[in-house]
Amino acid sequence: MSKVEKAVAKQENTQVYDLETRSRDDHHQSLKLWLRMLSCTVMVEAEIRSRLRAEFDITLPRFDLMAQLERHPDGLRMGELSKRMMVTGGNITGITDQLEQEKLVARVAVANDRRAYTVKLTAAGRRTFKRMATVHEAWIAELFSGLQHEQKNSMFELLSQVKSHLSTSTTIEEEE
Amino acid sequence: MSKVEKAVAKQENTQVYDLETRSRDDHHQSLKLWLRMLSCTVMVEAEIRSRLRAEFDITLPRFDLMAQLERHPDGLRMGELSKRMMVTGGNITGITDQLEQEKLVARVAVANDRRAYTVKLTAAGRRTFKRMATVHEAWIAELFSGLQHEQKNSMFELLSQVKSHLSTSTTIEEEE
Repeated sequence: MSKVEKAVAKQENTQVYDLETRSRDDHHQSLKLWLRMLSCTVMVEAEIRSRLRAEFDITLPRFDLMAQLERHPDGLRMGELSKRMMVTGGNITGITDQLEQEKLVARVAVANDRRAYTVKLTAAGRRTFKRMATVHEAWIAELFSGLQHEQKNSMFELLSQVKSHLSTSTTIEEEE
Repeated sequence: MSKVEKAVAKQENTQVYDLETRSRDDHHQSLKLWLRMLSCTVMVEAEIRSRLRAEFDITLPRFDLMAQLERHPDGLRMGELSKRMMVTGGNITGITDQLEQEKLVARVAVANDRRAYTVKLTAAGRRTFKRMATVHEAWIAELFSGLQHEQKNSMFELLSQVKSHLSTSTTIEEEE
């Protein structure tokens, strides 16, 4: 192999190496980002879970279920409700049964479908949820107060970009 | 009440109102940010969960447990392991038993404490995990490829700021 050939081969090797390194760096950067995001989410969720229990004696899945119903005043079928839940680990039928006994939600028959029903918040359920939601919102503001207003906007935009890419590239349905 | 008094009172009311509005807006902005972050996290987690199952026939909690052990070559006690897990819903003792049967982890006695033991990856466990981790990292890179390199850096910085505020303002321990 001539000197030139050797130089070309070396150059090519370097380029391949650079590409591989860059790809490894990109992978590593994304993984770091994901782990940090996951870790923040887990921390906020754990804090909210513990405050909801201490302040309102309510579990996070139960709060989440009421939050989904509050956004859908016309009611949700169990399958829709289950898809929209943001936290895992709750037994949705069990929670619904409990809330129904406490008259905070009601099962309502669907017209023209004898076996189907939707779940709605009752007036008492809406009142109870609203009271908790105001406090919950203040907690979230406190937990995110490490960021300035503009930084929150930036982060929201970045997350929106992540989300819109996820919607096109994953097989699962959107959760929100 | 004189005209001036009325004007002052009106002015004061406006200021109070403005403050309340601003606080409501801030709360609302933080809540929007949190819900978007939670929704992205849930989407990524669901996608990874489904790919891990399809590709490696492994559950996310099991992958997570091996990932924590990989970061702690000296082994972890069950309590430490449980605190470090990033996903909920897994039965840690059950997963450990399974992995031990498959010779991917080992329970190792702690010197000078007859009842205590730590859990470690075996050599086979490390090899198996490494193979999965490389693929997992490529998935994460793909799922976050909606962001440019610089945007990922920005988001990492913003999340770090959120996390460091969370560490000072919550009662829970850090998860990562």
